[in-house]
Amino acid sequence: MNKKKIINDPVYGFVTLPYEIIFDLIEHPYFQRLRHIQQLGLTSYVYPGALHTRFHHAIGATHLMTQAIKVLRSKGVVITKKEAKAVTIAILMHDIGHGPFSHALEYSLVANVHHEELSILFMEQLNEQFKGKLSLAIEIFKGDYEKHFLHELVSSQLDLDRLDYLKRDSFFTGVQEGVIGSERIIKMLNERENHLVVEHKGIYSIEKFIIARRLMYWQVYLHKTVLVAEIMLLKVLERAKELVRQGIDVFAPPYFRFFLEKDYHLDDFKNNESILQQFAQLGDADIFTSIKVWQQHEDTVLSELSKRIVNRKLLKIRLSNRAFSNKRFEELTQKAMQIYQISEHEASYLVFKDKIYNSAYTYEGTQINILHKNGKVQNILNASDLNLDSLTKPVVKHYMCYPKEVV
Amino acid sequence: MNKKKIINDPVYGFVTLPYEIIFDLIEHPYFQRLRHIQQLGLTSYVYPGALHTRFHHAIGATHLMTQAIKVLRSKGVVITKKEAKAVTIAILMHDIGHGPFSHALEYSLVANVHHEELSILFMEQLNEQFKGKLSLAIEIFKGDYEKHFLHELVSSQLDLDRLDYLKRDSFFTGVQEGVIGSERIIKMLNERENHLVVEHKGIYSIEKFIIARRLMYWQVYLHKTVLVAEIMLLKVLERAKELVRQGIDVFAPPYFRFFLEKDYHLDDFKNNESILQQFAQLGDADIFTSIKVWQQHEDTVLSELSKRIVNRKLLKIRLSNRAFSNKRFEELTQKAMQIYQISEHEASYLVFKDKIYNSAYTYEGTQINILHKNGKVQNILNASDLNLDSLTKPVVKHYMCYPKEVV
Amino acid sequence: MNKKKIINDPVYGFVTLPYEIIFDLIEHPYFQRLRHIQQLGLTSYVYPGALHTRFHHAIGATHLMTQAIKVLRSKGVVITKKEAKAVTIAILMHDIGHGPFSHALEYSLVANVHHEELSILFMEQLNEQFKGKLSLAIEIFKGDYEKHFLHELVSSQLDLDRLDYLKRDSFFTGVQEGVIGSERIIKMLNERENHLVVEHKGIYSIEKFIIARRLMYWQVYLHKTVLVAEIMLLKVLERAKELVRQGIDVFAPPYFRFFLEKDYHLDDFKNNESILQQFAQLGDADIFTSIKVWQQHEDTVLSELSKRIVNRKLLKIRLSNRAFSNKRFEELTQKAMQIYQISEHEASYLVFKDKIYNSAYTYEGTQINILHKNGKVQNILNASDLNLDSLTKPVVKHYMCYPKEVV
Amino acid sequence: MNKKKIINDPVYGFVTLPYEIIFDLIEHPYFQRLRHIQQLGLTSYVYPGALHTRFHHAIGATHLMTQAIKVLRSKGVVITKKEAKAVTIAILMHDIGHGPFSHALEYSLVANVHHEELSILFMEQLNEQFKGKLSLAIEIFKGDYEKHFLHELVSSQLDLDRLDYLKRDSFFTGVQEGVIGSERIIKMLNERENHLVVEHKGIYSIEKFIIARRLMYWQVYLHKTVLVAEIMLLKVLERAKELVRQGIDVFAPPYFRFFLEKDYHLDDFKNNESILQQFAQLGDADIFTSIKVWQQHEDTVLSELSKRIVNRKLLKIRLSNRAFSNKRFEELTQKAMQIYQISEHEASYLVFKDKIYNSAYTYEGTQINILHKNGKVQNILNASDLNLDSLTKPVVKHYMCYPKEVV
Repeated sequence: MNKKKIINDPVYGFVTLPYEIIFDLIEHPYFQRLRHIQQLGLTSYVYPGALHTRFHHAIGATHLMTQAIKVLRSKGVVITKKEAKAVTIAILMHDIGHGPFSHALEYSLVANVHHEELSILFMEQLNEQFKGKLSLAIEIFKGDYEKHFLHELVSSQLDLDRLDYLKRDSFFTGVQEGVIGSERIIKMLNERENHLVVEHKGIYSIEKFIIARRLMYWQVYLHKTVLVAEIMLLKVLERAKELVRQGIDVFAPPYFRFFLEKDYHLDDFKNNESILQQFAQLGDADIFTSIKVWQQHEDTVLSELSKRIVNRKLLKIRLSNRAFSNKRFEELTQKAMQIYQISEHEASYLVFKDKIYNSAYTYEGTQINILHKNGKVQNILNASDLNLDSLTKPVVKHYMCYPKEVV
Repeated sequence: MNKKKIINDPVYGFVTLPYEIIFDLIEHPYFQRLRHIQQLGLTSYVYPGALHTRFHHAIGATHLMTQAIKVLRSKGVVITKKEAKAVTIAILMHDIGHGPFSHALEYSLVANVHHEELSILFMEQLNEQFKGKLSLAIEIFKGDYEKHFLHELVSSQLDLDRLDYLKRDSFFTGVQEGVIGSERIIKMLNERENHLVVEHKGIYSIEKFIIARRLMYWQVYLHKTVLVAEIMLLKVLERAKELVRQGIDVFAPPYFRFFLEKDYHLDDFKNNESILQQFAQLGDADIFTSIKVWQQHEDTVLSELSKRIVNRKLLKIRLSNRAFSNKRFEELTQKAMQIYQISEHEASYLVFKDKIYNSAYTYEGTQINILHKNGKVQNILNASDLNLDSLTKPVVKHYMCYPKEVV
Repeated sequence: MNKKKIINDPVYGFVTLPYEIIFDLIEHPYFQRLRHIQQLGLTSYVYPGALHTRFHHAIGATHLMTQAIKVLRSKGVVITKKEAKAVTIAILMHDIGHGPFSHALEYSLVANVHHEELSILFMEQLNEQFKGKLSLAIEIFKGDYEKHFLHELVSSQLDLDRLDYLKRDSFFTGVQEGVIGSERIIKMLNERENHLVVEHKGIYSIEKFIIARRLMYWQVYLHKTVLVAEIMLLKVLERAKELVRQGIDVFAPPYFRFFLEKDYHLDDFKNNESILQQFAQLGDADIFTSIKVWQQHEDTVLSELSKRIVNRKLLKIRLSNRAFSNKRFEELTQKAMQIYQISEHEASYLVFKDKIYNSAYTYEGTQINILHKNGKVQNILNASDLNLDSLTKPVVKHYMCYPKEVV
Repeated sequence: MNKKKIINDPVYGFVTLPYEIIFDLIEHPYFQRLRHIQQLGLTSYVYPGALHTRFHHAIGATHLMTQAIKVLRSKGVVITKKEAKAVTIAILMHDIGHGPFSHALEYSLVANVHHEELSILFMEQLNEQFKGKLSLAIEIFKGDYEKHFLHELVSSQLDLDRLDYLKRDSFFTGVQEGVIGSERIIKMLNERENHLVVEHKGIYSIEKFIIARRLMYWQVYLHKTVLVAEIMLLKVLERAKELVRQGIDVFAPPYFRFFLEKDYHLDDFKNNESILQQFAQLGDADIFTSIKVWQQHEDTVLSELSKRIVNRKLLKIRLSNRAFSNKRFEELTQKAMQIYQISEHEASYLVFKDKIYNSAYTYEGTQINILHKNGKVQNILNASDLNLDSLTKPVVKHYMCYPKEVV
């Protein structure tokens, strides 16, 4: 059987799978599951084309890895066959731990567990099934392997994850201005002192990459309609958990009910393999189907939120640089209690306020480093004429949400 | 509120909604429902980018209608404001009657009812809610309005439905060769004796349109992996119905269960409005979530088919120009009965054969007519040097499916 | 010095030069000359973007050759390193013999000599300079090398020349419908019995390639405005030759004057190397600059044609499937003689008729062969359901041109 | 005759000419001339696709003007029919004064005259021929018309000239990262207090526009190979002038010789209409053809520079942030004098140094202003979180050029 399959990708044209094991991993139910988890959750409520999945993104990032390895090798960077295969596996698997609605429900469906932790658990289980063939990939993924630049290809400020998702997200949303020159940036990659660097002539491409990323954050990832839709998703899930734990019956597929009934923590996953099995069943459809059924539930909060999500009659959202006043907030809460005949606690599902941080383009951890002609390596913050420094401060936005009926 | 909203569309860039009523119709839950029905069902199992929905397609076709009206008017064809609005509504609504997985489950979920019949029912209900504002749109949609060319913009061999879906499907599958010059074809449209015609210099574009359509049929719509996946979807649904009607419990959201329990016919829909209400609840997620749960069902056939669909371990499919021999077929059936310990009837869900007709590019009904410089109107079949006649014969393909384990 | 240079190409993104000798050949003045010869002559008078040159086309075809070699090798076809380099040189050089305005002035500036003959002469001269490194390339180019499929990559119904120029021409004209799936077709190439074949699943791509080519012929290459502009170019050149040979002074750069003064035949080129040196000086600019100056020439015919070409006030052209009547033609000629006060012979430069053959999509010489799954090889004419046979008959079009003032 | 012609444009698809007078102006020889002046001069020596002309650019900018007028009107900005036509004429004509090789030879072929001054002269001559129909266009172009925002559409930091050329230049060079969202920026335009403003949600698009412009400057417009090629063009022209004015014969078409013989200033053009007539004859081809012939000239400097330009054997160029030392410069000069047996003055054509300023993204004159939701208008420098201020300082680069033989 020909396992060097070609996959059509509207973003890159044709993608060729480079190794048999990549094909076999893609065939595995754990990976097939990603076909049913959209990359951008409810973003399609604003950008109707944004339906692409983690499945396609992982394959795209794998495609870019093949290119990056080629470029680095052509510049004399030593990457052995074994390392090349391992780092390719690592990028393919980097998002395998994502649950339904990706980031929106992260930390909620599975309490306080980052998807990367789950990715590692999945990779370890697969490593058993594949008889140790993922060991080096796991080492690279965790950052434990001596050639650190391989880890940086998988996870850093300029990893192939980002180079794929920014391009893919702008492609499918139709926000053409977010398009980045992934191909060009990859051609500029090099390695110095065990770290990834970008050759000097790529500096303007990197500036553009940073600005494009910034644009995508404000125009797509933190678009206020997307934001309110995804918070509502969180709220409806919280309410469902609350009801279930009070013994009230709530429609859900069994493996979804499993996570409604009890909070599981990372240690639980480690101690009991079957929890990951349950998690591996979950996809966007389970959540959305349940919410559809919840529209008819007798609990006012559950049904109200569900109807609003399904029919895209979202809560109003107001954004501000300053915190909203408690007075106004309490008025709105009171009004909601009256209109919906609900308690203050219940009203907190419909009228709420909080803040978000966008430190999306900050420069924590790994930096983007520029390799000058004279061999000097310099942080992009200093190498660029642009005062990118101003971008490193996290931006805080306060929001307040409420049904338009309460105003 | 600004109802002339702009929508991002990766296919056309920006789409502007031309009328307030278009905005209001899109906001209606009946239309929002189309966000959750993919245009191409399980085609994404072969082309992972093909996740676009009926929602986006309907908006795209509406965009093309705006262009077509402009072009026709610029050539002196009279289209009143009222007619323009009506024909735009008609194209927006043309697919509103589609159920989950579009064509795959058509005629099955709702016995023998074509989606256009349901579209009319939806439009009539909406017409009541919108106080008669859809009356002319319905007349045009049904082909009853005196200006017949308006109907042809909505439904004919060269309607804006096709001009959008061929372009959109090739865009999202990444099958670039299917891309058609919708924009150019629209610029060539004209009207003669109440029928749409294409001006002579568009003849090569039309040839290319026909060839691109043919390519899309064989490469996408009838791709054998897509075919087997969608037939399996039909089979699992049939089995679920059978079990439910035997009184066996099967997981399903209530409005889906409604259609599992009993077959409804067009007359039922007409006599009982609530049936359409139930239907309006259905989306792809309901079917897929149910199938996921069915993987654990005690019925061998139901669980076997479900596991195979969810994990993309599809049945083998063989295609042939000639019918498959009964002998071979019976052997495979016997083998399946043994392996799975099932009856002959049950085996028929896993080993089956049939045929499909692809008369997709035949020329029934309305023709594509070419307007020559001298004013003569001629069928493209005669106007083209290409012997397109050969394409008008339906192609029959026989298929046989079975689990690879039985060979 | 890094000779594996990367070249930006709007059509393919980045093109990497595969061998040092490719870089060195591109640097040679003979090849640099192609920067100044447009691919499509005066086609930019209709499609203003169509300014791309033979230089870019040759590099594009070289890029496709790299891909084709990779594909064929991956299917087990043996192509040695030496052969790979040679066939790449052959495609780079395939158009080196083109003179100014490419096809328009072929057979005219250099009497009866096909550009491929001149390409061979150029390659032979370069072979001397490069000390025999082009020998195998020349053998392949001429079709003398034992592995005939290598020649077919350079020159056949489906060579990389065509796969590049169709894509490039449609790209720069903006005739998007002419776009072909070069990348996909190349992925389908294979070799059988020393001939190139296309694997069965590529059949629809080939059909589309043929239809796209047909569309490009009628919409671009034989567009009637392009046709008349290029015939006028021929006529003005003929007139200039006539005048020069009568001893009348006519502005021209010396190496252009060289070809105005005397007709050279293939044998002359072979016997006297300096003729090729003169030819190697010529570019589009020389002809166009001369025509600009000729606008002020005292010869009515020369100045009239020149003004019309420079200012794009072209002669009227009528096309017909039947020959134009002599009566009408003679009337127009008489009228021109009166208006311009010129002889009948002189009038023949302004009023003329003739015919063109478009056998562009005929199937002479090498065929496109389809490789079926069962190993059978079949001509596309038989393999396709489309009756492509009808396309093999050359189409004859009669034309008649005249100044609009004479009507 | 249908003057609302459609023009194919690879950048925008189809461009429709909005007024008959636009068609008539395009037909005029003055405008047809722009077909033969490339937008980016010798940039094609680095980016072989960059062959697009001022003709195509002017039509593209006209296309964007049609869009901008539509957008502004839809927001309640009053633009009368007459004004719309006039501002469209103004943008069509904005570059009509460009001479051969555009910016490279500006100030040189015609001493100290900016192309906009010549554009005005051309427009005034055309205004006579078109009986005053260009009067308002000229007023707008000059900035004299009361509605100043109309002038800003034609000439400002965010005019349609830039929105077209940045997009077009990045398209044809293949530098995809320079692509800007012209369509989106135009949708964000508005007018406040007689000035163009950009609505607040367009702020990220403007940032990206500025960064993309910056990238294009360093990667394309000031690419060092382009730079040296264009300076060499200047030098060869200077030398030719020098020789001609010493009475030495130099090949040139008569209207080119006209400008070699004597320097004309703006006042000369104003006092003597025939000078503009001569200028109107000039195109890139005249210069390039002459340089080709100059390769054989007996003057060493003229022939050396000419050969190097024609065969793309350019001088070496070194760039630096600091001035080059005189010592090194004099050594190189001495060496050149020896090798080529030329005087010090003559050597100055082959070995020279100077500096360039890139104040390309500075914010002189009109600013880009952002319109906030609360109605406040603010300079982008203050409105953006990015410290764009750093970009307003002109960058100075020193360069030194010499033949590689002298090192």
